[in-house]
Amino acid sequence: MTAARNLIAVEPTSRPEMHLAMASAVEEGGGTIVPISEASGLMFADPMAADSFPDLIAQATNVEWVQLPYAGVETFVQHLDASYTWTCGKGVYAPPVAEWIMTALLAAFRDIPTFARAKSWPAQAGRNLLGARLAILGGGGITESFLSLIKPWDCDTTVVRRQAAHVVGATRTVTTDQLDDVLGRVDAVIIALALTSQTRGIIDARRLQAMRNDAWLLNVGRGGHVVTDDLVNALRNNDIAGAVLDVTDPEPLPDGHPLWTLDNCLITPHVGNTPAMGLPLIADRVRENVARWIANEPLVGPVDVGLGY
Amino acid sequence: MTAARNLIAVEPTSRPEMHLAMASAVEEGGGTIVPISEASGLMFADPMAADSFPDLIAQATNVEWVQLPYAGVETFVQHLDASYTWTCGKGVYAPPVAEWIMTALLAAFRDIPTFARAKSWPAQAGRNLLGARLAILGGGGITESFLSLIKPWDCDTTVVRRQAAHVVGATRTVTTDQLDDVLGRVDAVIIALALTSQTRGIIDARRLQAMRNDAWLLNVGRGGHVVTDDLVNALRNNDIAGAVLDVTDPEPLPDGHPLWTLDNCLITPHVGNTPAMGLPLIADRVRENVARWIANEPLVGPVDVGLGY
Repeated sequence: MTAARNLIAVEPTSRPEMHLAMASAVEEGGGTIVPISEASGLMFADPMAADSFPDLIAQATNVEWVQLPYAGVETFVQHLDASYTWTCGKGVYAPPVAEWIMTALLAAFRDIPTFARAKSWPAQAGRNLLGARLAILGGGGITESFLSLIKPWDCDTTVVRRQAAHVVGATRTVTTDQLDDVLGRVDAVIIALALTSQTRGIIDARRLQAMRNDAWLLNVGRGGHVVTDDLVNALRNNDIAGAVLDVTDPEPLPDGHPLWTLDNCLITPHVGNTPAMGLPLIADRVRENVARWIANEPLVGPVDVGLGY
Repeated sequence: MTAARNLIAVEPTSRPEMHLAMASAVEEGGGTIVPISEASGLMFADPMAADSFPDLIAQATNVEWVQLPYAGVETFVQHLDASYTWTCGKGVYAPPVAEWIMTALLAAFRDIPTFARAKSWPAQAGRNLLGARLAILGGGGITESFLSLIKPWDCDTTVVRRQAAHVVGATRTVTTDQLDDVLGRVDAVIIALALTSQTRGIIDARRLQAMRNDAWLLNVGRGGHVVTDDLVNALRNNDIAGAVLDVTDPEPLPDGHPLWTLDNCLITPHVGNTPAMGLPLIADRVRENVARWIANEPLVGPVDVGLGY
């Protein structure tokens, strides 16, 4: 038996805010919420509950499509099954993270950490981001979204990535083998990479030395991209202007860690994209995909089960 | 006697960085630096030395044009003389100030002051500027420049100004009599006004009450636009989310002032446009105007001697 395409389940209910947001989005997209046993599509509503999927899908007799809440589906990969159509949240979470990069760049260039810590009128300081030279490590959705936000600043932007394909909006795109040349020529180095065996520790003592001593390091990738002890040394010696880190190694950074005490370091607690920011974004994806599903149109954010992403 | 138009003086020499930057710009524009007695144009090279102008111009027998370093010419107005052509730096300093507004908005929305002051891993916090509703008080060059920087954020922007003329890039432009209606509907209120008898104290206790309690106040105009004691009360009572102030009343803010102690207040020391940021911008104006002067083309940034601006 085939269920009508407008009949959609939203499960599990373990994360009430996401369940509510997805359920509203289903209805806005023209769907009707039903138990999973009657549904043609399942909106999976808790990114922390991948383990609950097998029991849930066992109750589904008519489900053909599963929408996941994730950007990357690493934690779900063992449940992917080619007898269903899968979609995920790929791309939807990039804008808040790109906004974090803009926030961190401007806070660094305009000396906001110093001013925020001052208890009396400080000396004038700061430089303009307008016209600056920037290197972005990684050529994914976050980088594309960032390049669209920074466009009015007329910056010189170099994207450093594995493949040679040009990233739209960048001044130039180069491959990773040219990273060392790029590092000495820019006012800020922005890490927006996935963590792999090839990118772990990509910023180490040698590469921090290669950076200009008035350049900033930003990390919104993963803590493991930077060798923390090497960064502490570089910051202590003023080998670089400073660092803004949304991710750290270890994370969370323990009390008493030297990075908490350095004036030229700003730590933010993994807030590139918070759950509160992401909820309306994944809801938008659900709304659009439900409307497309009902109209029998191609879905946005498909997962390739064979490739696992 | 009329001097050749390429003969230009740069005086006084009391501010060496500005003298050097303007002298280079004169040469880049096709001019030749000569003593003031031989010059057809004078580049006035010290914004703090208006008093030296009468003695300087007394040595000029052929000067027809004076380029001033100011955006506003209030401190120079008693020296304006209709027998010369006058130009100033109006418009050139807007981009750094617009960049300050973006910095302050992002720092506020993404909770950077809290993170900068933390000495252990803080709770996740922050909201997106993307899609926010903003009110900008003032419709001048700073506002125009700001609207071009924030364009990719898809914000809803209401410019509140004296005249009804629409500001390019704003979602809507309204007149000052509608200010009270606007205040309750926006996530941030940005003061980018000139200080006049009509705008002094424009943000007082009543208008702070009219703002949403999750809205931020930014001031990059003059300290006198905000009634400081009323702001302290509003911040203490969490009537608004917080304030970011580049200008204060009194300024500099004295040690021990309550604003230094409030977690929801960030003070920056009048750095919307610093001398270091402004120097290349006024140099660009000088270069362009020297080239235009030599080619007998209309100059940029003319001052109307009768109106005094």
